[in-house]
Amino acid sequence: MHYEKSDIKAMDRVKKLKIINSVPGIKPANLIGTIGNDGQTNVAVFSSVIHLGSDPALLGFIARPTGEVPRNTYKNIQENSCYTINHVHPEFTKNAHYTSAKFDKGISEFERCGLTEEFIKEFKAPFVKESQFKMGMRFREAIPISSNGTILVIGEIEHLILPDSAVNDDDDINLENTNGVGISGLNSYYSLKKIASYPYVRVHEVPEF
Amino acid sequence: MHYEKSDIKAMDRVKKLKIINSVPGIKPANLIGTIGNDGQTNVAVFSSVIHLGSDPALLGFIARPTGEVPRNTYKNIQENSCYTINHVHPEFTKNAHYTSAKFDKGISEFERCGLTEEFIKEFKAPFVKESQFKMGMRFREAIPISSNGTILVIGEIEHLILPDSAVNDDDDINLENTNGVGISGLNSYYSLKKIASYPYVRVHEVPEF
Repeated sequence: MHYEKSDIKAMDRVKKLKIINSVPGIKPANLIGTIGNDGQTNVAVFSSVIHLGSDPALLGFIARPTGEVPRNTYKNIQENSCYTINHVHPEFTKNAHYTSAKFDKGISEFERCGLTEEFIKEFKAPFVKESQFKMGMRFREAIPISSNGTILVIGEIEHLILPDSAVNDDDDINLENTNGVGISGLNSYYSLKKIASYPYVRVHEVPEF
Repeated sequence: MHYEKSDIKAMDRVKKLKIINSVPGIKPANLIGTIGNDGQTNVAVFSSVIHLGSDPALLGFIARPTGEVPRNTYKNIQENSCYTINHVHPEFTKNAHYTSAKFDKGISEFERCGLTEEFIKEFKAPFVKESQFKMGMRFREAIPISSNGTILVIGEIEHLILPDSAVNDDDDINLENTNGVGISGLNSYYSLKKIASYPYVRVHEVPEF
């Protein structure tokens, strides 16, 4: 199958949303937790969390201020400059997916979707108790993307909470062991099976083909 | 295990690279193919391809102009404004990983790493023949990220080539069926197993918890 630009343009809107959301390949399933100045908590599933750098430890995600995804996340981050990123695990993919419904501002998705708030000392935003792998983030920068009006929201990791068993002797994290979950498109969730691990490659180590 | 910001700061450099590259969760495994004005082709593995929007169909990726990853990719895109994004499959994760070695500019990773160039009419950048799921991209915008000197490179999909069986009756793409591969950190590759698919959620459809 070969779609050209004009074929994509002409696609039914929902079909296009589903297909184009899938083409980058597998995406990480995370819940982002926030709190407003009024004390109202919010949690929403995101598949756009991305590694930007390790020193400082920076992650980004894409906010769609006027789009389908709940917009309270970005507003709360602007108010409090902190948020949490929590890995989704297979036992609560359904609860995570429910957070994508457009609840009224006065409703907390934690309560409505069967997820549990968890707070740590001196950090305002709520973590997701059900998640074993989570980060407390401090907002650093919001970069408007003029091509389509989305925003790249960048934060630094202030807290990294993960199971003792997550990091192996080679300082690698095995996402099969931590029960990581991936998303394709808008609707499908995947578990992970580690198939290979290769060391850092030096030119002289690459065999002849 | 709970690392605070100061613990992360104090970590050994390589350990920090490995761990912080893993914390977003699973990342898509893609090969980006380019060509320079001198006709020299280049292909490199990237785990930072991200969906930005469906209409127009935009994808981004993070370039590290002065970092560890081969820098020819970004230079070639600036010269020709086109590039390809090709899914990695389990049969050639090792070849894909080899492309991360720092080959000299005059060396094509295609030849050196056992991957095959494939060209289509009226599109200058090389696709990866071994990949069943690939896109021809037109450069749109490069956004500098001041927090750490990386660049978000944004392009629009001009060609989308995928197996006939990839799109199911619900217009969803099943990445287990297309043999999609994920990456964690810098070194580990994963296959995918679909565990759930949920429809678009309306508020009144969310059950009581």
